Amino acid sequence: MSGVVDRGSLRFVFLLVAVIAADASAHCSGSGSPLVRNISDIPQSNFGRGGFAHTTIAGAVSHGMKEVEVWLQTFSPGTHTPIHRHSCEEVFVVLKGKGTLLLGSSSFKYPGTPQKFHIYANSTFSIPVNDPHQVLNADETEDLQLLVVISRPPVKVFIYEEWNMPHTAAKLKFPYYWDEECFHVKDEL
Amino acid sequence: MSGVVDRGSLRFVFLLVAVIAADASAHCSGSGSPLVRNISDIPQSNFGRGGFAHTTIAGAVSHGMKEVEVWLQTFSPGTHTPIHRHSCEEVFVVLKGKGTLLLGSSSFKYPGTPQKFHIYANSTFSIPVNDPHQVLNADETEDLQLLVVISRPPVKVFIYEEWNMPHTAAKLKFPYYWDEECFHVKDEL
Repeated sequence: MSGVVDRGSLRFVFLLVAVIAADASAHCSGSGSPLVRNISDIPQSNFGRGGFAHTTIAGAVSHGMKEVEVWLQTFSPGTHTPIHRHSCEEVFVVLKGKGTLLLGSSSFKYPGTPQKFHIYANSTFSIPVNDPHQVLNADETEDLQLLVVISRPPVKVFIYEEWNMPHTAAKLKFPYYWDEECFHVKDEL
Repeated sequence: MSGVVDRGSLRFVFLLVAVIAADASAHCSGSGSPLVRNISDIPQSNFGRGGFAHTTIAGAVSHGMKEVEVWLQTFSPGTHTPIHRHSCEEVFVVLKGKGTLLLGSSSFKYPGTPQKFHIYANSTFSIPVNDPHQVLNADETEDLQLLVVISRPPVKVFIYEEWNMPHTAAKLKFPYYWDEECFHVKDEL
């Protein structure tokens, strides 16, 4: 049977590819999105990061936002963001759970020993532009759920392996996981 | 006893004025705010609008934000925003209740008959820049609670008396209620 493909199978494959392309296009361009969206219906993924879930509630790449972007993120017990910085403003609203914010400084050659803050449900905090930071769910049982607002999307993130790494050695991750599928990188990063 | 003020009373008045000034200064400048804030501890007001409650979770005037601003707003049954437009992006996340979004167009001489959208808990929607809109709690019993994100704060709002009013006749309200106490209007509006 090898090498034999009937016309019906070909038509099925063609239709499947067309449906996937149309779906990806609607998901990426935002042109197919209704104005009012149920957040539970918006695609959610962990992007290969175990115990993590991300939803782009309103996005530059997904929904055409130019000035702000809103995410819903859930961290299971023991998980965390990388240590990272970005040149945009960021506001967090903690919806569920509790955890820790570690905040370094952009003023010196490397972030140094970070300040430590307790974060909890119904709390809010803002990250100073360019300051390296990390959000951790230090709880043993409960998820930490956050609403995240950033300016100037899509975000260009610089990632640190540890707090004593020089700012200049932090590694650019762009586009970020949730934009990778749709974003076409241009020359002017 | 009129015209007689003892030294103790004067000292009390002086201290009271100093405390009020220090408190207003901390509230307005954001310099006295802790990095992580309990949202329930942030001042909330209805600004003389019955059945309305506003909290600036992260604000330009209150917390020094330059690119984004986040509000928590609650509308009791039957209440609504004015019909208004602004030249910034705006994203809503509905936390509780249900209601109606009316959305006009900025393309013609006046907004015209608005489109009508049902909004509900766990839904999100974005307002196209400069399009006149109005959010209403059409429910008879339940509050409508929204998280609101805007770009380029503080917001300059243009208010319409009705949907057939020309865009050029909409009235500027700036600074808006929640910024009025702290914002010092400059010449260049």
